[in-house]
Amino acid sequence: MNVISKQISFPTKSEGDILDITKKVSEAVAETKLQNGIVTVFVTGATGALTTIEYEPGLLMDFPNMLERIAPKNFSYEHEKRWHDGNGHSHVRASLIGPSITVPFIKGKLTLGTWQQIVFVELDARNRVRNLVLQVIGEG
Amino acid sequence: MNVISKQISFPTKSEGDILDITKKVSEAVAETKLQNGIVTVFVTGATGALTTIEYEPGLLMDFPNMLERIAPKNFSYEHEKRWHDGNGHSHVRASLIGPSITVPFIKGKLTLGTWQQIVFVELDARNRVRNLVLQVIGEG
Amino acid sequence: MNVISKQISFPTKSEGDILDITKKVSEAVAETKLQNGIVTVFVTGATGALTTIEYEPGLLMDFPNMLERIAPKNFSYEHEKRWHDGNGHSHVRASLIGPSITVPFIKGKLTLGTWQQIVFVELDARNRVRNLVLQVIGEG
Repeated sequence: MNVISKQISFPTKSEGDILDITKKVSEAVAETKLQNGIVTVFVTGATGALTTIEYEPGLLMDFPNMLERIAPKNFSYEHEKRWHDGNGHSHVRASLIGPSITVPFIKGKLTLGTWQQIVFVELDARNRVRNLVLQVIGEG
Repeated sequence: MNVISKQISFPTKSEGDILDITKKVSEAVAETKLQNGIVTVFVTGATGALTTIEYEPGLLMDFPNMLERIAPKNFSYEHEKRWHDGNGHSHVRASLIGPSITVPFIKGKLTLGTWQQIVFVELDARNRVRNLVLQVIGEG
Repeated sequence: MNVISKQISFPTKSEGDILDITKKVSEAVAETKLQNGIVTVFVTGATGALTTIEYEPGLLMDFPNMLERIAPKNFSYEHEKRWHDGNGHSHVRASLIGPSITVPFIKGKLTLGTWQQIVFVELDARNRVRNLVLQVIGEG
């Protein structure tokens, strides 16, 4: 059994940007040469989130649209009254989805469905450079 | 330390079906003979989700009812415009709840509360056969 | 590789109470002397939840306010009709957020952002004494 840490970093374009990071995570797991285990992907920061989704253009609109109904951007947030950074909605959305995802891998391959991708969701009110920690635990 | 992979498979009846999989997960952990560790339960597929709930008939209605308020079935989804499979709401609900759950076990027993069960939530618009990966990591 | 179990226990004050448990989790990880790994924090019970948030007074109101829009307290719950404990909304909120969080640590330190804290969210309709299991897996 080993634990191997990887990091990935990328820029996001704007709020609501959903990035397919499946290939980056798969490659990181492959590099470890571990065969069976889990990878925990974690975003360092409180206005981004991780989940899985079928990565097709329709859902890339539908998912942010749902978040807008749950936590509208044009709404009165106590966070905004104190900090004036225009991202109260970003924070509460991120806390609801969560900052991490743990995915098993078997024989070196992530156990995802064919139409299921690991995604990073940019929830902040502006583009950012994002850093994710990938903690890979398993055996060779 | 070891990692042992298990899989469980079962049919669901219909959309909104919530299945108590606690016994299946407990038995899988017991079979590994590992004493202390974690089990990550992961659904292969983008229209199912995992969480915990007090498994009683009332909440089995209340939880889907909440999801219907967040992401109504009769609503315009971009996913639907492209794919016509009637499950845009299923996808966004599943991505919000998440495809996996990680539960500790100590002395071979899951650390659940008495009124807390591990459940699979069928969010797709029809019945399915579901496959879950259980990745058990721990020591004997 | 080792797995080391810790438990933390604390009282909550009331519904909507959000407690910063980052220090307790950090200290538990430090006590294990493990350098690289993950910690899974899990609440034993179905009316509490774990996530990360920027721990500042505004968001401590905004996050519960969002939950109140998703699952209002004054609403008809089937759970309530059966059990009369006034916490149908608590259960569905908790199942949506989730009972656990897994956070990597590297060189003995949690990989959190500067403005990102691990929090326990009390969702029950009354104050409780809460017990969390911390399952730490890693190598020295």
